[in-house]
Amino acid sequence: MRFEVTILGCGSATPASKRNPSAQIVNHSERFFLIDCGEGTQMQIRKCGIRFQKINHIFISHLHGDHYLGLVGLISTLHLLGRKNDLHLYCHNDLKQIIDIQLKASDTQLNFEIIYHFLSYQKSTLIYEDNQLMVKTIVLDHRIPCCGFLFEEKPRLPSLKKTLVEYYQLQPWQILDIKYGKEIILDDGQKINPAKLIEKKHDIRKYAYCSDTRYNENIISIIKGCNLLYHEATFTEELKSRAITTFHSTAKDAAEIASKAEVKKLLLGHFSARYNSTEGHYVEAKTIFESTEIAVELKSYEV
Amino acid sequence: MRFEVTILGCGSATPASKRNPSAQIVNHSERFFLIDCGEGTQMQIRKCGIRFQKINHIFISHLHGDHYLGLVGLISTLHLLGRKNDLHLYCHNDLKQIIDIQLKASDTQLNFEIIYHFLSYQKSTLIYEDNQLMVKTIVLDHRIPCCGFLFEEKPRLPSLKKTLVEYYQLQPWQILDIKYGKEIILDDGQKINPAKLIEKKHDIRKYAYCSDTRYNENIISIIKGCNLLYHEATFTEELKSRAITTFHSTAKDAAEIASKAEVKKLLLGHFSARYNSTEGHYVEAKTIFESTEIAVELKSYEV
Repeated sequence: MRFEVTILGCGSATPASKRNPSAQIVNHSERFFLIDCGEGTQMQIRKCGIRFQKINHIFISHLHGDHYLGLVGLISTLHLLGRKNDLHLYCHNDLKQIIDIQLKASDTQLNFEIIYHFLSYQKSTLIYEDNQLMVKTIVLDHRIPCCGFLFEEKPRLPSLKKTLVEYYQLQPWQILDIKYGKEIILDDGQKINPAKLIEKKHDIRKYAYCSDTRYNENIISIIKGCNLLYHEATFTEELKSRAITTFHSTAKDAAEIASKAEVKKLLLGHFSARYNSTEGHYVEAKTIFESTEIAVELKSYEV
Repeated sequence: MRFEVTILGCGSATPASKRNPSAQIVNHSERFFLIDCGEGTQMQIRKCGIRFQKINHIFISHLHGDHYLGLVGLISTLHLLGRKNDLHLYCHNDLKQIIDIQLKASDTQLNFEIIYHFLSYQKSTLIYEDNQLMVKTIVLDHRIPCCGFLFEEKPRLPSLKKTLVEYYQLQPWQILDIKYGKEIILDDGQKINPAKLIEKKHDIRKYAYCSDTRYNENIISIIKGCNLLYHEATFTEELKSRAITTFHSTAKDAAEIASKAEVKKLLLGHFSARYNSTEGHYVEAKTIFESTEIAVELKSYEV
């Protein structure tokens, strides 16, 4: 079952010629979740070939422009393309007024509903759930209320060996029993040990998105052991003091969080426009946390 | 004296992979005026190498998103880059609230002033004037209040033949007299006929920006004889009825306006995303008005 993240933008506040502001798509089993929506996100979505109308849930971390200024344009495009389905928006409650006032100014009556889910910034909260996936907030330490998002799979039943399922001509209810680990008895009295039919048990996979934030150990317990951590690294250590005053992290900060949270892989992003090359970020983080990668726009990363 | 327009975006409402929403820079004698500011405009400004802080006047035609959604991002960037100078904004009065609410949500106190000049949409009005240039509105026929902009030079004194100015060792006040067509008498009693010193008389140049609008003959008298007309051509004639219901023009409409207004050159833009090629627009317009060109992004056009 596919679970991957596609980076649409990994730049920070001021635009760099080669980097877009924050946005990314989480694809879990061909359901597409948009995290943040900086200016130009709809162009980036188009470039990576994702169909606009497949996006039903949008998560906005906070109301700095580089994380949401592409949203009204995207909503307008969804409308012009004839969307009818509800769009779920997980965001600060000020965003509703920002959207409403702009729809009114352009005399636009949307053909679909925006269902708002306003975030609380006090503690980690479950904000989305279906039968495969949960999304929880991660409270971050930024200049204005801000939270990241943890995408966590629900436990999945194991896969069975197809050839044996066919050999025994198992019925759906028998298959389910076996997946749940129950021994079954066939019509001829033969007993089937479930362990022999199990092809693969599935680990629970987790993806954590943490941007924007100062170095913040409070998030470690929530992101513990996740498969992939996207953590902001706006600066490198020579600008540590600037990172603190602007409520951002250095590459070293990100790596230390990754190390302490024992994540499997760290993906660095949200780079300041002052850095043409992110080689410095890479070296700085990799010294502390081996499994580090630099986010590249339009590239997908398996969770 | 330079007078040119650089197209930053010539697409319309929904994004096309290869076209940006409306924005362009008018450069008059190294003063830079921004017209419209669709999403992604700041990235386009950066691409064409114009310094952000050189822009002091921004003209917004109307409040459909594809004409202004890049503005808050641009203002934020100007702030982050340390701007101190006033920024003049010519726009619908609803735009102030749209900007204010977003600055408040991001807890941003700008280090510079935005001076608002609210537009009236009843009749053509002078909205900007300096010693070289005037800007007047052009009332357009669109679904919401909308106006284009006419950039018109003030009469300029002629240039003189440098070699003769040096030969006669003319003083500044004598040069000015000659430029105004007055005969002067040198210390030795010699009379100088101003006509003999004039190198070149300057025509008054005009640039008209007309997007978005239905076919509208009311604008002809205002844009009469202008050197360059940028006119929207969202559709071609096979979608004429759609052009009418959505308050847009076809390429033929634009060409007829250009022809009746006897402009020197027509530049077509604001193409619907449905057109991968604008060859159809070109052929349709050129049949009616010979001096037609298709707008190309990041290309500059002399007025």
